[in-house]
Amino acid sequence: MRNDERKINSLRSVNITANYITHPEGSVLIEVGNTKVICNASIEDRVPPFLRGQGKGWITAEYAMLPRATEQRNIRESSKGKVSGRTMEIQRLIGRALRSVVDLDSIGERTVWVDCDVIQADGGTRTASITGAFVAVVLAFGKLLEAKKIKKMPVTQFLGAVSVGVLPDGTEILDLNYEEDSQANVDMNIVMTGQQEFVEIQGTGEEATFTANQLQTMLKLAGEGIEQIFEIQRDTIGDLAERIGETKE
Amino acid sequence: MRNDERKINSLRSVNITANYITHPEGSVLIEVGNTKVICNASIEDRVPPFLRGQGKGWITAEYAMLPRATEQRNIRESSKGKVSGRTMEIQRLIGRALRSVVDLDSIGERTVWVDCDVIQADGGTRTASITGAFVAVVLAFGKLLEAKKIKKMPVTQFLGAVSVGVLPDGTEILDLNYEEDSQANVDMNIVMTGQQEFVEIQGTGEEATFTANQLQTMLKLAGEGIEQIFEIQRDTIGDLAERIGETKE
Amino acid sequence: MRNDERKINSLRSVNITANYITHPEGSVLIEVGNTKVICNASIEDRVPPFLRGQGKGWITAEYAMLPRATEQRNIRESSKGKVSGRTMEIQRLIGRALRSVVDLDSIGERTVWVDCDVIQADGGTRTASITGAFVAVVLAFGKLLEAKKIKKMPVTQFLGAVSVGVLPDGTEILDLNYEEDSQANVDMNIVMTGQQEFVEIQGTGEEATFTANQLQTMLKLAGEGIEQIFEIQRDTIGDLAERIGETKE
Amino acid sequence: MRNDERKINSLRSVNITANYITHPEGSVLIEVGNTKVICNASIEDRVPPFLRGQGKGWITAEYAMLPRATEQRNIRESSKGKVSGRTMEIQRLIGRALRSVVDLDSIGERTVWVDCDVIQADGGTRTASITGAFVAVVLAFGKLLEAKKIKKMPVTQFLGAVSVGVLPDGTEILDLNYEEDSQANVDMNIVMTGQQEFVEIQGTGEEATFTANQLQTMLKLAGEGIEQIFEIQRDTIGDLAERIGETKE
Amino acid sequence: MRNDERKINSLRSVNITANYITHPEGSVLIEVGNTKVICNASIEDRVPPFLRGQGKGWITAEYAMLPRATEQRNIRESSKGKVSGRTMEIQRLIGRALRSVVDLDSIGERTVWVDCDVIQADGGTRTASITGAFVAVVLAFGKLLEAKKIKKMPVTQFLGAVSVGVLPDGTEILDLNYEEDSQANVDMNIVMTGQQEFVEIQGTGEEATFTANQLQTMLKLAGEGIEQIFEIQRDTIGDLAERIGETKE
Amino acid sequence: MRNDERKINSLRSVNITANYITHPEGSVLIEVGNTKVICNASIEDRVPPFLRGQGKGWITAEYAMLPRATEQRNIRESSKGKVSGRTMEIQRLIGRALRSVVDLDSIGERTVWVDCDVIQADGGTRTASITGAFVAVVLAFGKLLEAKKIKKMPVTQFLGAVSVGVLPDGTEILDLNYEEDSQANVDMNIVMTGQQEFVEIQGTGEEATFTANQLQTMLKLAGEGIEQIFEIQRDTIGDLAERIGETKE
Repeated sequence: MRNDERKINSLRSVNITANYITHPEGSVLIEVGNTKVICNASIEDRVPPFLRGQGKGWITAEYAMLPRATEQRNIRESSKGKVSGRTMEIQRLIGRALRSVVDLDSIGERTVWVDCDVIQADGGTRTASITGAFVAVVLAFGKLLEAKKIKKMPVTQFLGAVSVGVLPDGTEILDLNYEEDSQANVDMNIVMTGQQEFVEIQGTGEEATFTANQLQTMLKLAGEGIEQIFEIQRDTIGDLAERIGETKE
Repeated sequence: MRNDERKINSLRSVNITANYITHPEGSVLIEVGNTKVICNASIEDRVPPFLRGQGKGWITAEYAMLPRATEQRNIRESSKGKVSGRTMEIQRLIGRALRSVVDLDSIGERTVWVDCDVIQADGGTRTASITGAFVAVVLAFGKLLEAKKIKKMPVTQFLGAVSVGVLPDGTEILDLNYEEDSQANVDMNIVMTGQQEFVEIQGTGEEATFTANQLQTMLKLAGEGIEQIFEIQRDTIGDLAERIGETKE
Repeated sequence: MRNDERKINSLRSVNITANYITHPEGSVLIEVGNTKVICNASIEDRVPPFLRGQGKGWITAEYAMLPRATEQRNIRESSKGKVSGRTMEIQRLIGRALRSVVDLDSIGERTVWVDCDVIQADGGTRTASITGAFVAVVLAFGKLLEAKKIKKMPVTQFLGAVSVGVLPDGTEILDLNYEEDSQANVDMNIVMTGQQEFVEIQGTGEEATFTANQLQTMLKLAGEGIEQIFEIQRDTIGDLAERIGETKE
Repeated sequence: MRNDERKINSLRSVNITANYITHPEGSVLIEVGNTKVICNASIEDRVPPFLRGQGKGWITAEYAMLPRATEQRNIRESSKGKVSGRTMEIQRLIGRALRSVVDLDSIGERTVWVDCDVIQADGGTRTASITGAFVAVVLAFGKLLEAKKIKKMPVTQFLGAVSVGVLPDGTEILDLNYEEDSQANVDMNIVMTGQQEFVEIQGTGEEATFTANQLQTMLKLAGEGIEQIFEIQRDTIGDLAERIGETKE
Repeated sequence: MRNDERKINSLRSVNITANYITHPEGSVLIEVGNTKVICNASIEDRVPPFLRGQGKGWITAEYAMLPRATEQRNIRESSKGKVSGRTMEIQRLIGRALRSVVDLDSIGERTVWVDCDVIQADGGTRTASITGAFVAVVLAFGKLLEAKKIKKMPVTQFLGAVSVGVLPDGTEILDLNYEEDSQANVDMNIVMTGQQEFVEIQGTGEEATFTANQLQTMLKLAGEGIEQIFEIQRDTIGDLAERIGETKE
Repeated sequence: MRNDERKINSLRSVNITANYITHPEGSVLIEVGNTKVICNASIEDRVPPFLRGQGKGWITAEYAMLPRATEQRNIRESSKGKVSGRTMEIQRLIGRALRSVVDLDSIGERTVWVDCDVIQADGGTRTASITGAFVAVVLAFGKLLEAKKIKKMPVTQFLGAVSVGVLPDGTEILDLNYEEDSQANVDMNIVMTGQQEFVEIQGTGEEATFTANQLQTMLKLAGEGIEQIFEIQRDTIGDLAERIGETKE
C-alpha cells in the first residue's frame, strides 16, 4: 500500500476543467491529485524567423511554477533574471511532445504558444502539463476550425503522459506523488500516443541504477495509466475527439 | 450607464476564496469582476540583511501576470530576463501598503513574502492584489497565532484599495474595468485603512490633466468603495477580524 | 522652523542654467538647494516601433544618479546590470508628465530623449528633474522652430513639480530636503500645469497614513510652490515662454 | 550500409588520450569518429552551500562547444549572456550520470568540476562527453589516492554512453554521426554501468514516434556498443581499473 | 595649424575645479578644452574579499559618459544591462594608473572608489579622467590626513596623462580633440609620473601602423605635455603637493 | 638564466599546426611553450549593420579560455552571464591588430570571425592568439582564393606579436611565461608587421613604472622576437606567403 493508499498501478484522480481562463484560445485547469496546472494555448498569426515563408506553423511551450506552488517558496525566475535548467528541460519536453502529434503543415504560418503554469505542486507536474496542454491545444484548434481559419483538425493522435518509478524497496509504481518522488531510486516520464507508440522516454536513476526487467515493468505500468488518461481527455473535449486524426480537408 | 451596466459609483462583484492553495501560510483567490488574482503569503523565519539582529520583521511583495492573463499574450518576464518597470512599480506599491498596517516590531525576525499572481486580468489588478494580499497576510498571521509563535495579531488596521478615474466625457467613476481603463483620461489608485485614512494616492493623467474638483469627487468615490471592500474582507477572515488592531500581547 | 531655517511653505532657492552642455538640443543644470540635476533633451528623427507610420512623435525619459551624488556611494546600475525599481518609477513618471503638456501630433516622427542625471542629491531629485526637463524640452523645441522643422511650439502648458510632506510632529511642509525626507511620515510628489491642473499626484505613507485634511493642506502648499517655479522657468526660457500654448501653425 | 560505410551495429573508432591538458587533476581528449571533446576533471576542496558540514562531496559538470566546432559557427554563450536550454540539459545529464557511479560519502567535502568542451562536433557529443568524463574523473581520483587524500577509489562501477536511433527507413542504428542524427526519426541516448544496468535513458521522437519493438532493438544495440567502450576506457586508465568498485578503505 | 588653431605641441586649456561635489571625500571637475569630467574619490572602510585581513588598501575606478556627452546620444549602459568593452578598458586603465602611485600598504583596509563621469566629451576623456582622478584622490587622502586616520600622504608621485597621435599627413600632434581623433591614423595614450617614468603606454593604429621614429616623436610630445599638467595639478592641490612622496610617517 | 633556462632574448618554442579543426575555413593550433591556443577563422557572407551596403568587409575576434586552462579553475563566462573586462580588452586587441593588415575593401561584404580559444595557458596567451589568428586568417582567405570568391590575397603584410617585460631585478626579457609574468614589474605586448612597423604597443607597470631606456630595450627585444615568429608563420602557410601584399587583382 502506498503513502496515499493507492495501489501500485493506480493513477491519482485526474480532473480537467475546460475553458478555465477567458482570454486564451484554449485553456484548461488540470488537477492530478493535488497537482494543479493551468494550461493555456494561444494562437499567434506568425511564426519564428527560422520558419518564415514556408507556409507551416510551430508549437512552443513555456512552463513555470508560482513561487509558493511548493512546500518551500522558490525565488521567481524573473527575479533571478534567468530560467533554470530544470525549467528549460521541461518546456523543451512539452513542446517536442506536442509537435509530434500535430500536423504543422496544415495550420498555416501560425504559432501555438502553450503556457503551463503550476499553481500547486505535488509531483508529476511535467506529465500533468503535457496531458493538460494536449487538451488546451485541441480546444484552441477547435476555435480555428469554428472560425474556418483551418480546414481540418491538425491533431493527428491523442497524447498523454505519466510518471513511473522504482521505490527504494524495489517496487515499481505508477504516477508518483511528491513524497514518493523524493524517495524513489528511479524516476521515469513516459509520453505516449493514442496508437500506443512512444514519443518520449526519460528515465533517470540519480545515485541509483535500474535493470532491464525493471524498465519493462515500468513501461507496462505507464502504458496502462496513459490509456485511462486518454479517456478523461476524450470526455473533456467532447465532439472534437472524433476529428483527431482526420485526413480529409 | 457604464459599458457593463454598472452605476458610476458601483463596485464590480468582489469574491474572496480563503485557503485557495495548500502550501502557503495564507492564500486567497480574489475575483473582482473578471479580474482574478492568487494572493499567497509565505512566512520565512529570517529577514533581509539590512534588518538582521534588530528583532523586527519585514513584508515584501512580488506581482506577476500569467502570459495569457490578458487579451494579447505577454512575453514572460523570466524569458526576457528582467522585470518591467510596471511590475516593479506595482510590487513596490503592494509591499509599502501592507507594511503600513502591520506592526513589524511584533513579528520577530520573520519575512512575509506576498505573491500576487494575476491569472486573469480585466482592469484593477493592482488594487485587487492589495485587497486580496491583505486577507492572505491576516490568514498567515492567524497560523502564527495558532502555533503560538507570536502573541498578538500584528495587523493594526484593515487595508483595501480601489481604482477611480475620469472618463473622456468628464464623468468620474469607481472601479474601472479594462475597457474603461483604456479610455479613461485619468487613472487613480487609492489605498485606505479601516480608519478612513490614506496610505497611498497615485493619480495620473497621461495626455490629460485633472482639476481639484475632479480630484475631490474621485476621493469620495474611492472612500465609499473601500468601505464595501472592508465588509467582504471581514466576512472572509471570520474571527480573526476581531483581533485586528489588538494592543495587548 | 525647519532644519535649514526655512518656513514651512518656503521653497529652497531654485536656479536653472540654460544651455549647460553643448551637444544636446536642449540642456539645463537645475539646482534646487543642494540638489543638482543635468537635464538634457535630445531630438532623434525617428520613433519607437509601436508608433511608426502614424506621423506623430514620442517623449521618453531616463533618470540616473552619479554613484556619489549621495552621502553613501551607490553601486552603478550599469555594474549591477539592471535598473532599480526606484529608477524605473522615476523615469516613467518624468516621461508621462512631459507627454501630458506636449502636442505629440505636431512634432512629426521624432523622439525626444530626456536624460536627467543627478550629480548631487539633497532630496527632491525627481521633482527637480521634471521642472528642469520641462525647460530642456522647451529649449530643444526652440531649436526645431528656429530650424523651421516644426511650425508651432508643441508645448501646450507650463509644467512644474514639487514635493510636500508631513513631519512626524504633524506639520505639513513644502519642498523637503534629504534630512526632512528621511524623517517624514508622508512624502508626496505633485506635478501641475500652468493652468493649475494636476498631472500626477503620488503620495505615500510608508509605516504611516494621512488624513483627508492633511491631504488638502499638502495640495495647497504644492500649488503655491509650483507657481513660483513657473516664474523661474519663464525667466530661463525668455521669448519662448510666449509661444507655449500657441495654437496657430 | 551507412553513410560512412559502417554496419548498423558498429561504433565509430573511439580514442582516448589521457593527461591531455597539464593543469587539471584528470584530463582526457576523447575522439569518437570526428567528434572531439576535451574532458577535464578539477578537484576543489569545498562543496556547494547545500552540502556544507555533511562530510560528503559533490560532482558537477559543465558542457560547451567552441563556436566553430560545428559546420555553422554558433554564437558564444558568454556573448549571449546566457546558457541555452540544450547546454543545460546536457550538463545536468553528465553530472547526474557521474554521480550515480561515485561514492560521494567517501571523498570528503570536495567538489569535482567536470568540464566537457567540444572542439569538433560530428554527432554524439553528449555521450562522448560522458564516456570521456568518466575517465577524467577516475584519473583525478587516482591523483587523490596517490596523494593519500582519500583511502579508496570512490568510483563504484564503469560508466559509458552511446546514442542509438531509428533512420527514416525504420532501421535501428548504433552511434549516430551528425548526418545520421539530422535525418533520424528517433534519437536515444543510453548511459549504462559496467554491471549492465541503466543510469539514464533519454529517447525522443520529434515529429515521429517509436514502437515497443523498436525500443527493444535500440536498447540491445546500445548494450553491445557500451561493452566495447568499457574496454577502451579500461585500456586508458590502466591499473586504476582494478580499483573501481573496491569496498575496503 | 590645427583645426582649433593650436600648434602641434600645444595642450588645450586645462582647468581643474576642486571640491566640485559636496559628498565625496575628493571631488573635481576637470575641463580639457571642451571635454568635461567629474572625478569623485570615495573612501570606503573595507576592501574587496581578495584583500581582506592583509592590512592593506585598494583603489578601483569606474568610468561612464552621460548619454548626451557626445554629438550622438548613446544608449545608457544601465539600460543595455552591460558595460561595453571600451568602458571596461578605460576603467581598468584608470585604476591601474592610480595604484602605481599610491602606497596601498599605508592606507589600512580601505578602498578608494574613483568615479569618472564624462558630462561633455571632445576627445581625450580617458586621459582627462586620469589627470583629474589623481587630484581627487590626493584631496580624499587629504581628508584622511586631516582626520588623522592615516599618518602620511600615501601618494608617492604626481601622475598625469595625455594623448598623442599621428594625423593622416604624418604629423605627430599632442592632445587630440574629437575631430582630430576621428581622423588620426595612430592614437596613443601615455601616463607618466612626476619622475618622468612611464606608467602606461597604449598605442594603436587601427587600419594603420607607425614607425619607430614616429613613436619617439610622440613620446617626446607626451612628456612635454604632461609636465604642464603637473603644474596645473600642483596649483589645484596647494599645500598637499608638498606631502606627495613623503616617507616619514 | 631564466626559470626555464632560456636566455633573456629567447623565445619559447613556437609550433603552429595548420588545419587543426575540420569545419572552419582557417584553423590552427598554436603552441608557444606550454601555452596552447586553437585559432579558428570563419567566413560569413554578411557584415554587421554599420557596414551594410558599403561593399567592404569586417574582421572581429573573440577570445576565451577553457575553465581549467589555468592552474586554478576559472568560472565559465557563460555561467557568469557576462564577459570580463580582461576578455573584452584582449578580443578588441586581436580584432584591431588583424584589421590593420587586411584590405577590407577587397573582401566584399564578408565578416571574418576569429575565435581564439586557449586550451592551456602558460603566459602570453594574447600574443600567441594574434600570431596564430594571423595564420588562420591567411588560410581562410586561401580558401576564398581557391574558390575564386576573391581575386587577390587581402592580407597586406605579415603580423606577429610577443610580450616583453622587466623582472624585479631590472632585467628586460622576451616572451614571458606565466611565472615570469606574475613576478614582472612591467608587462608589455607588442604587435608588429612584416615591414617592422608597430600596430599596437600596450605597456603597463602596475605598482611599478619604467624608464625611457627600459622601453627602448624592450622594443628591441620584441622586434627580434617577432622576426623569428614571421619565419614560423611563413613555413606554416607555404605558398600563400608569396601572395601576402599582392596588389594586382
